[in-house]
Amino acid sequence: MNILVINAGSSSLKYQLIDMNGEKVLAKGLCDRIGLSGSVIKHKTHDGRAIEKEIVMSNHLDAIKQLIAVLTDEQVGVIKSLDEINAVGHRVVHGGEKFFSSVVINDEVLKTIEECEELAPLHNPPNVTGIKACTEIMKGVPQVAVFDTAFHQTMPKKAYIYALPYEYYEKYKLRKYGFHGTSHKYVSERAAVLLNKPYDQLKIVTCHLGNGSSITAVDCGKSVETSMGFTPLDGLAMGTRCGTIDPAAVTFLMNKEKLTTEQMDEIMNKKSGVYGISGVSSDFRDLDDAVEKGNERAELALQIFAYQVKKYIGAYACAMGGLDAVVFTAGIGENNPGIRQRICSNLEFLGIKIDPEKNKIRGAEIDISAEGAKVRTLVIPTNEELAIAKETIRLIGR
Amino acid sequence: MNILVINAGSSSLKYQLIDMNGEKVLAKGLCDRIGLSGSVIKHKTHDGRAIEKEIVMSNHLDAIKQLIAVLTDEQVGVIKSLDEINAVGHRVVHGGEKFFSSVVINDEVLKTIEECEELAPLHNPPNVTGIKACTEIMKGVPQVAVFDTAFHQTMPKKAYIYALPYEYYEKYKLRKYGFHGTSHKYVSERAAVLLNKPYDQLKIVTCHLGNGSSITAVDCGKSVETSMGFTPLDGLAMGTRCGTIDPAAVTFLMNKEKLTTEQMDEIMNKKSGVYGISGVSSDFRDLDDAVEKGNERAELALQIFAYQVKKYIGAYACAMGGLDAVVFTAGIGENNPGIRQRICSNLEFLGIKIDPEKNKIRGAEIDISAEGAKVRTLVIPTNEELAIAKETIRLIGR
Repeated sequence: MNILVINAGSSSLKYQLIDMNGEKVLAKGLCDRIGLSGSVIKHKTHDGRAIEKEIVMSNHLDAIKQLIAVLTDEQVGVIKSLDEINAVGHRVVHGGEKFFSSVVINDEVLKTIEECEELAPLHNPPNVTGIKACTEIMKGVPQVAVFDTAFHQTMPKKAYIYALPYEYYEKYKLRKYGFHGTSHKYVSERAAVLLNKPYDQLKIVTCHLGNGSSITAVDCGKSVETSMGFTPLDGLAMGTRCGTIDPAAVTFLMNKEKLTTEQMDEIMNKKSGVYGISGVSSDFRDLDDAVEKGNERAELALQIFAYQVKKYIGAYACAMGGLDAVVFTAGIGENNPGIRQRICSNLEFLGIKIDPEKNKIRGAEIDISAEGAKVRTLVIPTNEELAIAKETIRLIGR
Repeated sequence: MNILVINAGSSSLKYQLIDMNGEKVLAKGLCDRIGLSGSVIKHKTHDGRAIEKEIVMSNHLDAIKQLIAVLTDEQVGVIKSLDEINAVGHRVVHGGEKFFSSVVINDEVLKTIEECEELAPLHNPPNVTGIKACTEIMKGVPQVAVFDTAFHQTMPKKAYIYALPYEYYEKYKLRKYGFHGTSHKYVSERAAVLLNKPYDQLKIVTCHLGNGSSITAVDCGKSVETSMGFTPLDGLAMGTRCGTIDPAAVTFLMNKEKLTTEQMDEIMNKKSGVYGISGVSSDFRDLDDAVEKGNERAELALQIFAYQVKKYIGAYACAMGGLDAVVFTAGIGENNPGIRQRICSNLEFLGIKIDPEKNKIRGAEIDISAEGAKVRTLVIPTNEELAIAKETIRLIGR
């Protein structure tokens, strides 16, 4: 049972072919610069064969054709023909208020996903293009859409309605949606397994800290609150995104710098975050290096990031009325002991205490709590592709 | 020792004359519609005499002249002449990064306050006008400026720097300032007295909940975090202000509704908050009535407000690494048991539990904690005028 997982961006397309017997990644790769000059496919197999070649891919249909070609290639392939792909799972960013869970794709579903494009004008169109390309090339192979927003559709209204005139919610569906849902769901489920407790009896704060970062309160298996909002700009300061700021700062800066809304969006999304604070980099490894060399603004950027996560943990514990576990995942959450240490310091009053030795771990599943800590702190590598593949299997009913 | 406290707005001016021997309010009043048609002065004395009269006040100088006239009036006056006013204390909204505490006003100070006008273009100019009018009329009487922002100048950089390009902080001083400082300081000091513990050893979250609302973390006597930001729009949903929203929602709405920055500011400041959610009113008493009658959006507005306060309590406990007391103050905080109940529900895990009977209190200083609650919950009526008068006395050194 092989599942092809597709994550289509505007000019890129990531894929993994996973054999679900043993959850083994047979091959994975990236089609990059689709529709641009110098488009390239990078492909790797489980047994170390690899290829990287420039080839014209003028659209996502070309990209899907190319990845099928390498997957079935004599040298670097892992299957003999298309028939060995049993289903396709697509990451779709925005399911609006339409999708509470993953769904098998048919014409009606595709139309509904297209209706959500207004909410994610940069992300949903390439997702749709990817689905259409697969439909054309892999006729009859079942396809499933797994949404970044779906896990958060259980949030109560008090968590997702903004204190703006209510008509904007009715007119534009302007509300908090939240993202990274596949990851938050996956790691919170894993946490219950690791803690050997029923998922539906645990209060968990999941910290997905990567280039994009978000925090979620998972109360008895349901997302009840999350830090990203109407868009993935909201919440934590991130690599280059500002996260929550005084909304009056938006109009103030637009006036002062004579910016259009597009220019302001660009600044908030691409020039802010720890990059904007530090002036050094959006990559936390670069920031760590800069701090080593005494760069004060890099240090400030790390302080701000960790401090904001710390506050969310307290806020979300209150949202749930208690806290059993905190989970760190994604690039920074899995691999940056220093940030985890900063976040968890001085939270003994909440029951959080980590073991400095255990906290040295990078990229493995482990409980890093200090002995006797009432709240367990876990590092759990996320695996969105595997989660998408599992959802796909679940839905196609095999 | 009589102190005149002045709170000058753009078209209004509130005043109190306080006899500091016994902290007795001799008289208080309001000059309204200054510079507009139908300007009016409303004045009341401690012993029940009152006057309300329409009289031309074309500017703040006229208003100060009128309030001196009623204060020294034979019928409704409380002093014989100007000589019985020993000093004037002015509420000034924004002290920028210049003022860490209250200050005796001289030419240089006045100039510096004027330099802060860009940060509070609606609020500081009338404050300055009020100071200048007093200087002209009450020559030689010492004047003190007490800033809404000063108490928060102890915040660490990680709390007040936004994750925007750092140059905007350097260029425009765009950062979190916080407001209501006089109130947060006053009620947190009172909390230490009520708890009979040293102010500099307590971790207190103060909830100033009124038409404008803000929450502050007071750690060992110092403000280390507060919910209002660069402007008083940020933080909690308020009567008509939206508080924190996804900053991308600002540009989204501007595009969709073809709004200028001024129009967007107007919507976020005047048409949002619990008024915007409910469509009913910005007044919590009206919302309570509407909820009684089954209005679901009024109920949603109250839920959102209380839920946001609840999350701030947890976030700020984490910011301080612990929590000894929560204080409720201002119009809603002092007088709305229902909101206090919603906020404090389900926070036993943090040590917060209130006594439903004690919580029935309105407008009095009381510990409403349930027996045995580890964190004390207090209701403390704020008194910004008295706090300003005390600061004034302290600074003029008598």
